[in-house]
Amino acid sequence: MGLIVQKFGGTSVADAERINRAARRAIKAKLAGHKVCVVVSAMGKTTDKLVELASQISSNPPKREMDMLLSTGEQISIALMAMAIYEMGHSAISMTGGQVGLYTDSAHTKARITKIDADRIFKHLNNGDIVIVAGFQGIDEQGNITTLGRGGSDTTAVALAAVLNADVCEIYTDVNGIYTADPRVVPKARKLGKITYDEILELASLGASVMHNRSIEFGKKYGVPIHVRSSLTDEQGTIICEETPNMEEITVRGVTVKKDLARITLMGVPDKKGIAAKIFHSISSENIVVDDIIQNPLPDGNANISFTVEKADFREARTISEKINTELGGKGVAYDDQVAKVSVVGIGMRSHTGVAAKMFEALAEAGINIQNISTSEIKISCIVSRDEADEALRKIHTAFGLDSTEE
Amino acid sequence: MGLIVQKFGGTSVADAERINRAARRAIKAKLAGHKVCVVVSAMGKTTDKLVELASQISSNPPKREMDMLLSTGEQISIALMAMAIYEMGHSAISMTGGQVGLYTDSAHTKARITKIDADRIFKHLNNGDIVIVAGFQGIDEQGNITTLGRGGSDTTAVALAAVLNADVCEIYTDVNGIYTADPRVVPKARKLGKITYDEILELASLGASVMHNRSIEFGKKYGVPIHVRSSLTDEQGTIICEETPNMEEITVRGVTVKKDLARITLMGVPDKKGIAAKIFHSISSENIVVDDIIQNPLPDGNANISFTVEKADFREARTISEKINTELGGKGVAYDDQVAKVSVVGIGMRSHTGVAAKMFEALAEAGINIQNISTSEIKISCIVSRDEADEALRKIHTAFGLDSTEE
Repeated sequence: MGLIVQKFGGTSVADAERINRAARRAIKAKLAGHKVCVVVSAMGKTTDKLVELASQISSNPPKREMDMLLSTGEQISIALMAMAIYEMGHSAISMTGGQVGLYTDSAHTKARITKIDADRIFKHLNNGDIVIVAGFQGIDEQGNITTLGRGGSDTTAVALAAVLNADVCEIYTDVNGIYTADPRVVPKARKLGKITYDEILELASLGASVMHNRSIEFGKKYGVPIHVRSSLTDEQGTIICEETPNMEEITVRGVTVKKDLARITLMGVPDKKGIAAKIFHSISSENIVVDDIIQNPLPDGNANISFTVEKADFREARTISEKINTELGGKGVAYDDQVAKVSVVGIGMRSHTGVAAKMFEALAEAGINIQNISTSEIKISCIVSRDEADEALRKIHTAFGLDSTEE
Repeated sequence: MGLIVQKFGGTSVADAERINRAARRAIKAKLAGHKVCVVVSAMGKTTDKLVELASQISSNPPKREMDMLLSTGEQISIALMAMAIYEMGHSAISMTGGQVGLYTDSAHTKARITKIDADRIFKHLNNGDIVIVAGFQGIDEQGNITTLGRGGSDTTAVALAAVLNADVCEIYTDVNGIYTADPRVVPKARKLGKITYDEILELASLGASVMHNRSIEFGKKYGVPIHVRSSLTDEQGTIICEETPNMEEITVRGVTVKKDLARITLMGVPDKKGIAAKIFHSISSENIVVDDIIQNPLPDGNANISFTVEKADFREARTISEKINTELGGKGVAYDDQVAKVSVVGIGMRSHTGVAAKMFEALAEAGINIQNISTSEIKISCIVSRDEADEALRKIHTAFGLDSTEE
């Protein structure tokens, strides 16, 4: 007898058949003796269609009205899901973000949860109802409808699991778990049984897209075990949880690649105090995120300063860099918009040595040149040429013994 | 400087272009110095599509969940309307039924309004905002979303006009007013400048479909002038209002026909106390509405009892009638499923004599047989053969001097 929160994403409720499948899953958990709270996203492409409708009216609609519009997508899903459960002979009740008392600040389209009054949910759970909650949405103190931004339904699910003190938050999706690498790139990737919040946060920020970081951070903060699994099968997926002692035995949990990067180098700028601050202040004031910064002193007292940006920001970052270079009397700006970053992530690195060496060896053996290296406590990243990135990932995956032994 | 409530139906907000047109109309009223509150229905066929979605899940969905589902249609419309007004440089705010504090009982899918907290609307109107309210929906005391049933957006508009003490409630629709008769049947029908609540209620119940009776009754109860007009032109439409002295000068305001009727006669049943009650109790207990009841005593101490029912109820009413006829030892059941009712309506009848005579003469001159006659204080109805009904309507229209003099 426990309490389970199940979250079904847009593809898992895309049509009547899939809604029925999700309903059966909720009922199965109910019949196994659990209290069940279900969080759903908007059906399939509903949100896209609503955005398109708005764009026919306004190129820059007020965000409050955008939230009013988009929140209808989840409201449709919860009503249909409750109907499906009823049709199967079980009791259910749907609730909007406002009705469950999910309060947020007033930052429309990217609101933050401020509090959740779980009383109404508990009342219905204790009554034996399956409670169906609209993901992605809440209300502010004035009763305006707000939305939580990208990955919002995951955040709703994990936050509810936290306040309800759920045994697990199950995230049903179209993949059957989290892998040691993207199986499209690394065919020998293995599904992980467990991964820590910190590892998945690093993997996500490095390019792996399973859940939005915000919901993982929420899960980490409140210690909610998150089970990422397929909505199509009963197969066990991957549990995202706190670190347990035996999890450190594995050095590297997964590898990942981020391909949409460009590298910019300001050459021969004065190697003086405050120069780097000036450069990166100018760039960040345009809301461009920079990463992998390297400063190489030159024999003449100047320095080369390199960094990477997302490819979408490349043109703007380059323009700013050229302007700064001129102001500083530098020797010009070099760039390479064909780079990628391959990374290995694992909490085991804290206690194991030789991880970096093994990674560099693997790349060297494959004849892949490393342009840059950056590290954190639980990850090592290398910038490589984009056309060698996939091969680099596969070599590293093999080197760390992550390859599946299955055929 | 007044306060205007404008209501736009589904066809008037069916696409971006029409939403923009409605937005311009609201802004025009604002610029003329009025406070403006707009009520909108769901776009075009949205409600039908949602009903279809539900039918894919359940043949008999819980009504609470149906309301949760259907209320999204109006929510989409209000958001888009507010965006359109913003895009044109004016301030607007959309509100769901719950947000405006439109409370109802808990009779899902046909809820009745219990109270409206107009404070929030007034606050925004005083702030200069155009307030956009979702029609058709409210919340009950527990915060569940309810809907008002057929014609619900009209009811929302008239009810808001009442609590806001609006100068007028404008109903924008795809006709440009209320006519002396259906122009498709009577090409010489004239648009009315004014009509009383009682007259439109009689016309509506007799077959004319402009607004749902519930909203008219609301308007009558609270004395809200209702202006029915076209969403496509600036032309003056028809004002539905309290009776004013000069309105009695016209004997007949309009004529109408109801074609989907059938007539049933129980022949030779005992002419005793309680027999009619027994017959109509049996029929009404099946939720069948009967009308135009006539009891003719026969020389043998028995009686023929005739009545009309809607054609949709005919088969069931006939079966029940045959059963009762047998129980009562009657002489059999006759029926005619090819009848129609033509009616003349006007508050002037109260003070003018000879109205019935004029109607019967017009039908006699046209060679049309009258099967039955029924009257109320402000209407006279005749049952005629359905294939003669249109011609009957045109003759009566001419006889009462209602024909347009325009070519």
